[in-house]
Amino acid sequence: MSAVEQRLAALGITLPSPAAPAANYVPFVRTGNLLVIAGQLCFGPDGKLAPEHKGKLGDTVSIEQGKAAARLCAINLLAQVKAAIGNLDRIERCVRLGGFINATLDFEPLAQVMNGASDLMVEALGDKGRHARSTVGVIVPFAAAVEVEGMFEISA
Amino acid sequence: MSAVEQRLAALGITLPSPAAPAANYVPFVRTGNLLVIAGQLCFGPDGKLAPEHKGKLGDTVSIEQGKAAARLCAINLLAQVKAAIGNLDRIERCVRLGGFINATLDFEPLAQVMNGASDLMVEALGDKGRHARSTVGVIVPFAAAVEVEGMFEISA
Amino acid sequence: MSAVEQRLAALGITLPSPAAPAANYVPFVRTGNLLVIAGQLCFGPDGKLAPEHKGKLGDTVSIEQGKAAARLCAINLLAQVKAAIGNLDRIERCVRLGGFINATLDFEPLAQVMNGASDLMVEALGDKGRHARSTVGVIVPFAAAVEVEGMFEISA
Repeated sequence: MSAVEQRLAALGITLPSPAAPAANYVPFVRTGNLLVIAGQLCFGPDGKLAPEHKGKLGDTVSIEQGKAAARLCAINLLAQVKAAIGNLDRIERCVRLGGFINATLDFEPLAQVMNGASDLMVEALGDKGRHARSTVGVIVPFAAAVEVEGMFEISA
Repeated sequence: MSAVEQRLAALGITLPSPAAPAANYVPFVRTGNLLVIAGQLCFGPDGKLAPEHKGKLGDTVSIEQGKAAARLCAINLLAQVKAAIGNLDRIERCVRLGGFINATLDFEPLAQVMNGASDLMVEALGDKGRHARSTVGVIVPFAAAVEVEGMFEISA
Repeated sequence: MSAVEQRLAALGITLPSPAAPAANYVPFVRTGNLLVIAGQLCFGPDGKLAPEHKGKLGDTVSIEQGKAAARLCAINLLAQVKAAIGNLDRIERCVRLGGFINATLDFEPLAQVMNGASDLMVEALGDKGRHARSTVGVIVPFAAAVEVEGMFEISA
């Protein structure tokens, strides 16, 4: 088991089966040492959107629920990285996360919600998990509370 | 004529003149083997937004109209790639598409709309057209129904 | 002083201290010759959001105020690039800007607002500042009027 997965296991996290794309695209593409991961929704370990992770921040979804949803997105990103390269210890760096928060028009604490994803990435990868990040409020497919996309540098 | 353009011709598609940027930027930048294409709106072959491709999904624009708009964005992306590298057969891979759908706040089937772009890319490029993708609902410039940006890997 | 900073100085612009990330991430990550900069908000030289740069385009923020806010985001991007690589003359190219405009649902002239960022980049970097760009209307953290993220190619 990779050191990264051991760290996840210590947090009580087992990587789920990576989600199949919702449509005619693929979950990851490698180009050179870059691995681009498609936007991941906040599906739980059962592959489903929990009711509390469906809806908008600022409306039915609380900040704590949103953070938990963002954390699930980060876990799902790592599941895709594992599917792509086999061993998470081959991650050199989480380069960028793009956070899309399903939010009402006047919802301000978007960064706080996205921290759920950023924190997990650093817990799992240590300093290699420190990423550049953009966070915005949008409308997310299937009314999921959060979607996060990622770009990783991997060893050759 | 490139094999890719022959495939497009068989679909009845001629690449349009690539749209001039709406402002002080350029339609594409190459860095190493990566080609980054600016967000393309759903302009038709005449360089104009058709009335049915203006407005929001969930309001005046139907899902079928939205899919057609997304398809136009993908065609416009390929027109820019051709302007950048001359021959579309030099595309090694469509790495990523970013789909921005002009949608009402409660519109859920965003992925279905974006399929119009993804399907075209695979029809044109085959397996090289299979890309990572993020789709969100936003507000799109000029009230266009769809905007799609792209990243391609090209041969040296 | 770098030639780029001399050009900025001639415009009356001194690069501010780069903003600390609002959360558990970093302002920039380098991978190969690419430098990915986290989304920068329209903080002023004092590190604060001016009242006229808070709120939505189409509501309380005018197009001119929005352009000025986008210009601040571009300045803040360059401040981060300087923090990352020391000398702005090492920028080979501004590859991509992603513009996120805090806008009402029916606000159309998003491109015009984003020009504030694009124009500054070209004023500062000349032809190396000409970038690919995507602009959309969204909800921005802290109710900032504009957020801009960037990708730069830097010399080895």
